[in-house]
Amino acid sequence: MAKCNKEQNLKKAFGWAARDTSGVLSPFHFSRRENGEKDVTFKVLYCGICHSDLHMVKNEWGTTTYPLVPGHEIVGVVTEVGSEVKKLKVGDKVGVGCLVGACHSCDNCTNNLENYCPKVIFTYGATYHDGTPTQGGYSDVMVANEHFIIRIPDNLPLDTAAPLLCAGITVYSPLKYFELDKPGYHVGIVGLGGLGHLAVKFAKAMGIKVTVISTSPNKKKEAIENLGADSFLVSRDQHGMQAAIGTMDGIIDTVSAVHPLVPLISLLKSHGKLIMVGAPAKPLELPAMPLILGRKMVVGSCIGGMKETQEMIDFAGKHNVTSEIEVIPMDYVNTAMARLVKADLRYRFVIDVANTLKPSS
Amino acid sequence: MAKCNKEQNLKKAFGWAARDTSGVLSPFHFSRRENGEKDVTFKVLYCGICHSDLHMVKNEWGTTTYPLVPGHEIVGVVTEVGSEVKKLKVGDKVGVGCLVGACHSCDNCTNNLENYCPKVIFTYGATYHDGTPTQGGYSDVMVANEHFIIRIPDNLPLDTAAPLLCAGITVYSPLKYFELDKPGYHVGIVGLGGLGHLAVKFAKAMGIKVTVISTSPNKKKEAIENLGADSFLVSRDQHGMQAAIGTMDGIIDTVSAVHPLVPLISLLKSHGKLIMVGAPAKPLELPAMPLILGRKMVVGSCIGGMKETQEMIDFAGKHNVTSEIEVIPMDYVNTAMARLVKADLRYRFVIDVANTLKPSS
Repeated sequence: MAKCNKEQNLKKAFGWAARDTSGVLSPFHFSRRENGEKDVTFKVLYCGICHSDLHMVKNEWGTTTYPLVPGHEIVGVVTEVGSEVKKLKVGDKVGVGCLVGACHSCDNCTNNLENYCPKVIFTYGATYHDGTPTQGGYSDVMVANEHFIIRIPDNLPLDTAAPLLCAGITVYSPLKYFELDKPGYHVGIVGLGGLGHLAVKFAKAMGIKVTVISTSPNKKKEAIENLGADSFLVSRDQHGMQAAIGTMDGIIDTVSAVHPLVPLISLLKSHGKLIMVGAPAKPLELPAMPLILGRKMVVGSCIGGMKETQEMIDFAGKHNVTSEIEVIPMDYVNTAMARLVKADLRYRFVIDVANTLKPSS
Repeated sequence: MAKCNKEQNLKKAFGWAARDTSGVLSPFHFSRRENGEKDVTFKVLYCGICHSDLHMVKNEWGTTTYPLVPGHEIVGVVTEVGSEVKKLKVGDKVGVGCLVGACHSCDNCTNNLENYCPKVIFTYGATYHDGTPTQGGYSDVMVANEHFIIRIPDNLPLDTAAPLLCAGITVYSPLKYFELDKPGYHVGIVGLGGLGHLAVKFAKAMGIKVTVISTSPNKKKEAIENLGADSFLVSRDQHGMQAAIGTMDGIIDTVSAVHPLVPLISLLKSHGKLIMVGAPAKPLELPAMPLILGRKMVVGSCIGGMKETQEMIDFAGKHNVTSEIEVIPMDYVNTAMARLVKADLRYRFVIDVANTLKPSS
């Protein structure tokens, strides 16, 4: 795209953006590129609110450039496709998750792991190949290269499917990659929030035994009766934790607060895997001996590649895995962010963008 | 073995034992069981000194019962075999490593991972099935069930082979299990002691690229010219460490002092594996984000099972992998322990038991 043509090649867009480290969002007019030959444009219907959005609007990771339109759990309906687009057509139900670009040539990219590409371009808060800032889905329209567009299965409601594009793939990918989906396996899920409740649903859909590990005894009923977990452990209940020592093949740890790892490592069988998908701000304490004596591993995992994200949502369609959500209007977003800080939700906010994003001058 | 027959079924043995937490070793008469139907008795010729011996003689792990005869890198020549022994005969060159018993029925045992069996019986400092204490190889004779006897390849000298039975398998097993032995792979070895120097030799014999990472610049020549490493990094050399970021598929970390993990994690490629085989006494600091962003893992590994230990030593025979050693007489053992504390050796002490263990009244 030649620079001299830049102004001609812009598409008007409207959303809500954060302007400074207060993180307060307000209406914002901006532009996106015109739909290119390999691009897909879609009308945004819903967008989930991820915990990352909260970090980014407040610049808590130190990488934010303002104004910032957050949102990377974006779903809608295709309104335009480029001449070289092959797999999608106008009217299709689609979504964009955390990624909109990668190098397509590194080892990770050639192995369908764009999420680990050193030149990955995130859906918002990054810089696109053409030098423009990327902006997320708290907005009316989205444009992305076909490679980064996910087709949403027909049977999935778009609102409850939206969080699958980040929270869903974040927990699905490690369950698959670390081979925890084997018959007879037993997996612990630490923390019952946006990530954790989807981890329970995916793990149960994979047919494995699931134990939720939480600091909150009052989540037991919900975990077992509504989400389908097989059992529930209160992490402060020493008797219960003791009885569960050495019983788990893997643990998905979704907690982003600093917390002790040793009790979790103890729950693992030999060769068990503790997978961190929440990122505490400070380092955790890791004693070597419990890892050595059981050949246990502590590992991280970050979303998933495009191929696996499509597989995840197709699996979700087949097994009716969707997020528990609270649908909110766009002008509730600052309140929602405040509630998110307090974990006062079950389990994901989803913005009804199409019906509530009001035009503003 | 009926209790009433116990005294009849004893074999005289003589070695050096620690008597208290001073860890000082001195001559000690004790007994071993008579050779049973499935047992193999061998005359001990050499025994390596492992860092674990040092911890155990001083009760630094809190599990020691005195008197304690240490030593689990034991080699010699078979003098007696039981009627049901199938794979060995008198005169064979054999060894015993860290294990002399296990349950033989748990998941780990049925997968040839006796080293991770919850009922594993260590070669010394443990209690055998018959209730007697196990005693190690700083002694003239060894008796063990055939299952725990390793056949030493004919071409390997017994003295330089002895350390393979603990130090060797400790580094060989993770290189194999974590699949770091693939053509074109690049592995870092942290620390160039008893474990580290064998890790370099095994990794080179597997045909992979090896970089030694050490705090001591003066080990560079030795690492590259004598041990065959491809390159050498001084861990305090920020420029060198920076240049090596993201270049390694795996790292074998042999350091048992507290040390920072982040610089090592940085050296790994995405999906890289940091394998701890040294056990620092205090917890290490583990930040989650570097693991998450690269799907990197931190994992422990503990010696190996009997099948893999035999494979390791057969591989060592085929590729002429042996330990660099300093052969010492038995009465030098306390001095050797003191030098071990200061890491004043290259790279393993091996006691010439047969020629220097003097009879004592």
